[in-house]
Amino acid sequence: MRVALIGGGVIGGGWAGRLVENGIDVVVHDPHPEAPRRVREMLELAERAWASLTIAPRERGAVAFAGSLAEAVADADVVQESAPEDEALKRRLLAEIDRYARPDALVCSSTSGLLPSRLQAEMARPGRLVVGHPFNPVYLLPLVEVCAGKQTSPDAVDRAEEFYASLGMRVLRVRGEIDGFVADRLLEALWREALWLVHDGVATTGEVDDAIRFGAGLRWAQMGSFLTYRIAGGEEGIRHFMHQFGPALHWPWTKLVDVPELTDGFLDRIAAQSDEQAAGLSIRELEQRRDDNLVAILLALRAQGWGAGAVLNEHERRLYAAAAARHAPDSEDVSRPLSLLRARVLPEWVDYNGHMTESRYLEVFGNTTDAFLRYAGMDDVYLATGHSVYTVETHIRHLREVAGLEQLEVMTHVLGADDKRIHIFHALAHAPSGDLLATAEHMLLHVDARASRACPMLEPLASRVRRIAEAQSALSPPEGAGSSIRLPAR
Amino acid sequence: MRVALIGGGVIGGGWAGRLVENGIDVVVHDPHPEAPRRVREMLELAERAWASLTIAPRERGAVAFAGSLAEAVADADVVQESAPEDEALKRRLLAEIDRYARPDALVCSSTSGLLPSRLQAEMARPGRLVVGHPFNPVYLLPLVEVCAGKQTSPDAVDRAEEFYASLGMRVLRVRGEIDGFVADRLLEALWREALWLVHDGVATTGEVDDAIRFGAGLRWAQMGSFLTYRIAGGEEGIRHFMHQFGPALHWPWTKLVDVPELTDGFLDRIAAQSDEQAAGLSIRELEQRRDDNLVAILLALRAQGWGAGAVLNEHERRLYAAAAARHAPDSEDVSRPLSLLRARVLPEWVDYNGHMTESRYLEVFGNTTDAFLRYAGMDDVYLATGHSVYTVETHIRHLREVAGLEQLEVMTHVLGADDKRIHIFHALAHAPSGDLLATAEHMLLHVDARASRACPMLEPLASRVRRIAEAQSALSPPEGAGSSIRLPAR
Repeated sequence: MRVALIGGGVIGGGWAGRLVENGIDVVVHDPHPEAPRRVREMLELAERAWASLTIAPRERGAVAFAGSLAEAVADADVVQESAPEDEALKRRLLAEIDRYARPDALVCSSTSGLLPSRLQAEMARPGRLVVGHPFNPVYLLPLVEVCAGKQTSPDAVDRAEEFYASLGMRVLRVRGEIDGFVADRLLEALWREALWLVHDGVATTGEVDDAIRFGAGLRWAQMGSFLTYRIAGGEEGIRHFMHQFGPALHWPWTKLVDVPELTDGFLDRIAAQSDEQAAGLSIRELEQRRDDNLVAILLALRAQGWGAGAVLNEHERRLYAAAAARHAPDSEDVSRPLSLLRARVLPEWVDYNGHMTESRYLEVFGNTTDAFLRYAGMDDVYLATGHSVYTVETHIRHLREVAGLEQLEVMTHVLGADDKRIHIFHALAHAPSGDLLATAEHMLLHVDARASRACPMLEPLASRVRRIAEAQSALSPPEGAGSSIRLPAR
Repeated sequence: MRVALIGGGVIGGGWAGRLVENGIDVVVHDPHPEAPRRVREMLELAERAWASLTIAPRERGAVAFAGSLAEAVADADVVQESAPEDEALKRRLLAEIDRYARPDALVCSSTSGLLPSRLQAEMARPGRLVVGHPFNPVYLLPLVEVCAGKQTSPDAVDRAEEFYASLGMRVLRVRGEIDGFVADRLLEALWREALWLVHDGVATTGEVDDAIRFGAGLRWAQMGSFLTYRIAGGEEGIRHFMHQFGPALHWPWTKLVDVPELTDGFLDRIAAQSDEQAAGLSIRELEQRRDDNLVAILLALRAQGWGAGAVLNEHERRLYAAAAARHAPDSEDVSRPLSLLRARVLPEWVDYNGHMTESRYLEVFGNTTDAFLRYAGMDDVYLATGHSVYTVETHIRHLREVAGLEQLEVMTHVLGADDKRIHIFHALAHAPSGDLLATAEHMLLHVDARASRACPMLEPLASRVRRIAEAQSALSPPEGAGSSIRLPAR
C-alpha cells in the first residue's frame, strides 16, 4: 500500500503521521521549500504520540518527497489532497492528480467544506473523487467526514471508508453535500460566537477558552450536545429538555437570531433520533457512563497537570493539607496496622476478565504508600527540598478475586526501617467483610533525588518512621511477608 | 459551614453532590414531591464519581430537606438558588431568601444567563447577590462563572470566588453582565447550529454528536478554540491562522451571517491576548502538550470502551490480529528470552520525582504478559470461551531509575509451567544500551473465569506454553528470580 499526499502542511503532515504509524509508505509533494522539514517534524510528533497510544505491534511506513505532483502520484493506491482551502486551486490540483495517477487509484480531498461536486468538475474520472475531511491533529483525532459528489461512484466511497477505518479512524458519512459538512458548521458557529465575545470585549481569548475547557469541553470529549441534553432533561428525557429550554432559543443569547421553530414534527424527529442514539440505556445508565468518562478524563488530565486536571491537583493538595492538620502520627496510637486508604473498585479498573486489572493493584498499593509517607511527614514542603522515597522492590500476592464496585480498605504494617529504608506491608481487604484480597510488600529507599543517590531521611520523616516502626515491631509478621515465588512441587 | 440549596433538580442536586463530597452540610428545599428522591440519587452518583476522582482524605457532609424556604435558609452561611430559568420566579425567590437568611449569609444564583442586576432588584440586601453558574454534572465539571450585578458588593464576589474554589472549582470571573454570560453563549451557538442540521435533515442527532465527540470535542476537553487555532496556524501562529481563515468567515457555512470584521485593531487584540494565553510556550511545545493531553484522554476513554476510546480498542484488535498472522511461536525459535514489548516512557508516566511512577512498571509488565499470552495463542476467540489467565503473584525489583522518554524493551523468560500455571520472568531494559532497569517475576494461573476456578490450559495455548517453557528450560535462571524482600543486615 502506497499513499501520495499532495500538500504537506498541518493537515498533509498529519496524514503522513497517521499513515506512517500504521505501516503505510507515503510520498509527499508540496512546492513549499520548508515542507519536508515540517512534515518530518509532524512525523516526530506522531511517533511520539503513537508510542504512548498503543503497545500493539505495528510496522512503520517510510516517507519520501517528490519534486512534482506527477512523480508523487504515479505509483499510489490512494492520493490524498490537502492543499489550502481555495476551490480553484483544488479543482486544478485534483484534475492534475487525475491525469497522472493510475486509473484504479482512489483520489481523496481533505477539504473542510468545499463541495465535492464542484471539486470533481474538471476531472476526467470524477467517479473516484471522495472527500475525506480529517481534524487536526490528524494522527490523533479519529474523526473523518466522508462525502460524495454527484459524480462520485458508490464503490469509491466504500473504498475510502474502508481505507480510513484501517487507519483507526471513525468515519462519519455525510448524507448530503453542504458547505462545511457537519463538523465544521458546528465548530464555525462556536468560533464566530467566540470572535464576537472577544470583539465586544466581553471576554479575552483565554477566558473564552477557559469557558470551554473547564466545562462543556470535558463533556464533548465523550458525548455531543444531544446526548448531553437528553441526560440533563432527567427522567423525562429529551422532550422535557426541549420543552423546558425551547423558549430560550428565542432569547438574544447569541448573535445568531434565526433559529428553527420547534414544531411537533421537528420535536418528534429529535426524540426518535435521540432514542435510537441512547441504544436502550436509561438516563441513570447514561449518567453513570458520562460520569465514568468524565472521571477518566479528569484523571488523565490530572496526570498531565493540565486544565481541569490541574484544578483537581490543586484541590487534592488542599485536602491533604487539611487532613494533615487533623491527624499526625505524633499524637496518635500507631502500634497497630494503620488504616490509610479506603477505595472503591471502579468500572474502569476492571479488565476483560471482569476483575481488577493487575496494574490497578499496584496503583492502590502505591497510593497507600504515598498516603503513609504523607502521614509520616513527607508533604509538599519536604518534597521541595529535593528528597523523596523510591520503591526498590515490590511483592504482590493475589489471594481472592476483586470484582467491580467492591469497597476496599488497605491496612499498613511497617515491618522495619533503618535510616534510609522502610520495609512496609500493605493488606488489601474487602472493607465490609474484612476478607483479605491481596497483599503487597515493599522496600522503600529514601533518596536525594537531585543527586540520584540514597541518603538518610530528614526530620520529621525520620523520627516519625522510627516511632511507627518501633511501635509495630511487637506485632507478629503478616502471612506471606518475606516469601518468594515458586511453582508448587509436582 | 452550612449551605442551603433552593431547588433540587439537576443543578441543585449536583451542587448537593459537590458540597457533600467536600464535607459541607446541606439543607435542600424544593417543593417538588420527588425532589428528595432525586437529590439522593444525585448524591449517589456524586459519591460514586468522587470515590474514583480522588483518594485524598475527605469528610462527607450531611443532607437534610426543609419543608419551607425560610427553614432551609435560616441557619445557612451560603444560599445557592437553582430554580428554573424564569426571571420572575428567581426574583421572587431571591427576595424571599434575602428576607429569611442571616444578614451575613452569601446569596448565589445558578442562573445560566439571567442578569444579576435584574435578579437582585427586589432584594433588601442586593449587595450579597452573586451569580455562580455551574455546569452539569456540577459535582464533576470544575467551571463556575461568577458574575456581579450593579448592586453587588466586591466583598460578596470575593467570598463567592473563595467558596467555589474551596470546592475544587475553577472560577471564571465574567467581566460584564451579558445575557448568557460567556459559556452559554458559546454552547448556545453550537446548539442552535446543531438544531438546524437536524432540522434540515443534514444529519441525525447521533451524527451531530459523533461529529463532536470523535473530533473537536476531544480537543475542547483541554484547549479552547483560540489556543487550538494558534497551534493550527503553525509556526506563524494565530495571526497567520486568522489571515488564512478570515475569508471563510464570510462563507455561508452556518445559519449565522453576522460576523465581526477582522480589522487590524481587532486582530492585534486577538494576537496580544493569544500570546498572553500561550504563556511563552512555543508552537512545538503547545503541540506536544496538546498531544499528551489527547493521548491521555484517548487512553482514558479506551479504558471506558467509549467513543473515541472504543475506536482505538477496535484498531488495536486489528493490529494484534495482523501481528498474530505475521508471527506465531510454532514456527519461530523460542529457546531464548522473547522480545514481545517495546515502549517509551511517556511524560504522564513520570511522577513528582521525575521518574516512572510505580504502577506504570506493573502496567508495562502486565502489558508484556498480555503480549506473551496473545503470542502463545490466548486471542479474542480463546477469551470468548470464558477461559483466561490471572496473575496470582508478582515480584518487582527496581534496579535503576527510569526517566522520561527512555526507550524500553522487555525480554520474557518462561521459568517453568505446568498444566495450569506459568512462572514467567520479565526483564525491562533501556533499549539502546541494554542496561537492566527492573525485573518482574510472576506466577500466572489459568482459570475458567465463569466458574472462578483454576483449570488446565486449552489448545493451542497449552502446547505452545509447554513448547516455550521446554525450549527455555536450558537457560540459567535470571538474577533475582526466586528471591524475597529483606532489609539488609546491619
